[in-house]
Amino acid sequence: MSKNITTRAEDYSKWYNELVVKADLAENSGVRGCMVIKPYGYAIWEKLQAELDKKFKETGHQNAYFPLFIPKSLFEAEEKNAEGFAKECAIVTHYRLKNDPDNPGKLMVDPDAKLEEELIVRPTSEAIIWNTYKNWIQSYRDLPILINQWANVVRWEMRTRLFLRTAEFLWQEGHTAHETKQEAVAEAKQMQDVYADVVENFMAIPVVKGFKTETERFAGADDTYTIEALMQDGKALQAGTSHFLGQNFAKAFDVKFVNKEGKQEYVWATSWGVSTRLMGALIMTHSDDNGLVLPPKLAPIQVVIVPIHKTDEQLQQITDQVDVLVAELKKIGISVKFDDRTNLKPGWKFNEYELKGVPVRIAVGPKDMENGTYEIARRDTLTKEVVSKEAALDYISGLLEDIQANLFNRALTYRDEHITEVNSFDEFKEVLDTKGGFISAHWDGTPETEEKIKELTKATIRCIPLNRVAEEGKCVYTGAVSAGRVLFAKAY
Amino acid sequence: MSKNITTRAEDYSKWYNELVVKADLAENSGVRGCMVIKPYGYAIWEKLQAELDKKFKETGHQNAYFPLFIPKSLFEAEEKNAEGFAKECAIVTHYRLKNDPDNPGKLMVDPDAKLEEELIVRPTSEAIIWNTYKNWIQSYRDLPILINQWANVVRWEMRTRLFLRTAEFLWQEGHTAHETKQEAVAEAKQMQDVYADVVENFMAIPVVKGFKTETERFAGADDTYTIEALMQDGKALQAGTSHFLGQNFAKAFDVKFVNKEGKQEYVWATSWGVSTRLMGALIMTHSDDNGLVLPPKLAPIQVVIVPIHKTDEQLQQITDQVDVLVAELKKIGISVKFDDRTNLKPGWKFNEYELKGVPVRIAVGPKDMENGTYEIARRDTLTKEVVSKEAALDYISGLLEDIQANLFNRALTYRDEHITEVNSFDEFKEVLDTKGGFISAHWDGTPETEEKIKELTKATIRCIPLNRVAEEGKCVYTGAVSAGRVLFAKAY
Repeated sequence: MSKNITTRAEDYSKWYNELVVKADLAENSGVRGCMVIKPYGYAIWEKLQAELDKKFKETGHQNAYFPLFIPKSLFEAEEKNAEGFAKECAIVTHYRLKNDPDNPGKLMVDPDAKLEEELIVRPTSEAIIWNTYKNWIQSYRDLPILINQWANVVRWEMRTRLFLRTAEFLWQEGHTAHETKQEAVAEAKQMQDVYADVVENFMAIPVVKGFKTETERFAGADDTYTIEALMQDGKALQAGTSHFLGQNFAKAFDVKFVNKEGKQEYVWATSWGVSTRLMGALIMTHSDDNGLVLPPKLAPIQVVIVPIHKTDEQLQQITDQVDVLVAELKKIGISVKFDDRTNLKPGWKFNEYELKGVPVRIAVGPKDMENGTYEIARRDTLTKEVVSKEAALDYISGLLEDIQANLFNRALTYRDEHITEVNSFDEFKEVLDTKGGFISAHWDGTPETEEKIKELTKATIRCIPLNRVAEEGKCVYTGAVSAGRVLFAKAY
Repeated sequence: MSKNITTRAEDYSKWYNELVVKADLAENSGVRGCMVIKPYGYAIWEKLQAELDKKFKETGHQNAYFPLFIPKSLFEAEEKNAEGFAKECAIVTHYRLKNDPDNPGKLMVDPDAKLEEELIVRPTSEAIIWNTYKNWIQSYRDLPILINQWANVVRWEMRTRLFLRTAEFLWQEGHTAHETKQEAVAEAKQMQDVYADVVENFMAIPVVKGFKTETERFAGADDTYTIEALMQDGKALQAGTSHFLGQNFAKAFDVKFVNKEGKQEYVWATSWGVSTRLMGALIMTHSDDNGLVLPPKLAPIQVVIVPIHKTDEQLQQITDQVDVLVAELKKIGISVKFDDRTNLKPGWKFNEYELKGVPVRIAVGPKDMENGTYEIARRDTLTKEVVSKEAALDYISGLLEDIQANLFNRALTYRDEHITEVNSFDEFKEVLDTKGGFISAHWDGTPETEEKIKELTKATIRCIPLNRVAEEGKCVYTGAVSAGRVLFAKAY
């Protein structure tokens, strides 16, 4: 397996596109902007799904499923939300094809099968879900409703990139309903914490927790809580958002409940989601010029064993010994593959597993058999050690933990080195152009200034960090008074 | 909780519709023909999914994900498949809404955002998948491809019913590619076996394994293997199908490979699927006039414990004791709920859990506390026993197995009693009208006779059983020669 990937230094964007395809994660399909998620990429997504799903259930949520389609009249009910998504949605207008009389063997849309009301393919499901919740909620006893759905959604993006921005993508969307504002805000924050936990401790991607400015908020939300990650090229990536929706959807869909005092009140709402976009964040946080680097907790194959042999007899001896190790590893829950294909050279296999980011690679040849050792290589640092076969099990299990921690710490160091405080707009522009990363700067709080800075630099306010310290200062652009710093960055 | 469901004897169809809604499984949505799968229904589906997914992986399949949309030109490539689905598909024609100038606050389809080529919302994914496989397959070394996808699909059915026939439904679809015809046929049969295994041993629904006549085959298949179940009202339900697709899709999408002899050959294919329709089969196989009856292996809650008390002190004593039992049950992997809500009466709870089909219900009151006993009721037979608290754990765990076995055996007895051999058309009609079920009859093998019988009786050939014995006979309708019996039934 020859890798032949463009290096990151040469062209980061090209490196990314090539890696996604060559590591068998995903590829473009015959449908504009829609991707095929290949088995290896999907196996990573499944592990991430399982972890998220577990956390959702631990925090009291249940899964359900709502329709793919949203009738136009429901779609437009919450005006801001509708406005936010109207420009990029797929619309079903007909429900039948017929034989095309002018083109034998071809089909055409049957004009007699026009829908009375157009259906929007969901770009997000608040509208259809709140239209449903309306019938589920009469009294405070029906609250809270804590539901999540795993689904596909469609946003007709003009420029698409595998995982990062696709017309169709997979995600989960939580939609909750509450008695009080306080409870809904607490839920939105809790889910931000759940996301940060999984992304940091499972994907090994450090994030900044914050909330969005009005401009960057989800269409229809009163507040958007976000987790922001930093990619190796100095651009930020929004890794997950959790929205406090206030009573906006309750009002749009007339969802009221009788509270404990016997009074009618509108229900309070949240929604929150992460998507296959996280796969892009994963790749751009850890991988290198040799290919993918996967945190052990997400790797479909955590350990691969490659035999090195000249004769069938040697292979048999290696196999007999490796079978024991494989069984021991499986017993302690480590996923392992013994690649004993004889039509491929060890070097080819090494390259392949490097490209696919397998965290630990074990090589075992005749010399190892003589000495009772394994050669154990780690993908993150590309270093290797010779380990006695008696010590191998403990070594591997410790190594996987080390790699998980090392990936997080390495990314954290990079991220922390790329948060730069600036106090003038010249400095702002210079740091952005030379170093990139997050720029911590004072801002006067107006959408106008935010827009102007974006126009001049392409940097947007990624978030107002939750843990920012109160600090009087002057807006980096207008010089007007500011109560604290916000994080700017160019973003995916 | 008052159940108030129509009885099965009164109106089976109404009973079904009411039960689905009252047991919180699913409901109709604001979108024509599309359902909302509610958390309780979805939890059952998730358990079924997990079991199927495990079996797919054990038989060497991997999951992946392909686009929701199929461009019209790909959709029409395999003519029989296209013809089979063209009359009932949702079609995306536009990708943007805009403000409607004539109706302030309303949106309209933007005529300037018409797609160059219409997109069909997948009714099944052979077309988009074979268009993808084309790029994945060059040599016999690239085969077999063994992929499954969990997805939503859309078929624009005119008459819909919750779970049984909905415009959108959830399913899995396996799509495999092989070197030889033999291997593809073996795969199709293997997946029929996997389906039969899960449906019988997990859902406790007995099935007949067979294959379809040409008329009833999947559009684009050379052979369709099916598992057919029998519902309580004597109607059959197709529970899963596995198709040998021959080289039809390979030819339509020009997918060739170089075989071991160095020659170009078209690839052999299968596809196979089961859907949320199985939820309908589950309900109509086991449930009764009191509500849902769930096989323990599929029940989200296997055991519910209801305290019976007058004072807070009594409840505390019961809770202390029950906490131990709950921990013990969880330890051996039994899902249990202690319903200590004080605002609802025990009788209300009993009704609720009967309606929801919880397999085992434990009641514990002051008398039980005195005697050191539990009252343990089983949902399938609605009988109960008093069991000492020391024996409870073993008793419950045995009882869950008993219930699982009893549900299967009960359904098997019913099914076997409802396979009737007939030798004349009068008998055929009489059995169909009075007893229903499967009718085992000779058929002359022609689509014309099949069609005629369907026209006269509404019965179709559900399958040609795999295990049928060779038996010379005369067609029940035409009297022409027949080589063996086939199974007719009215079907969902």
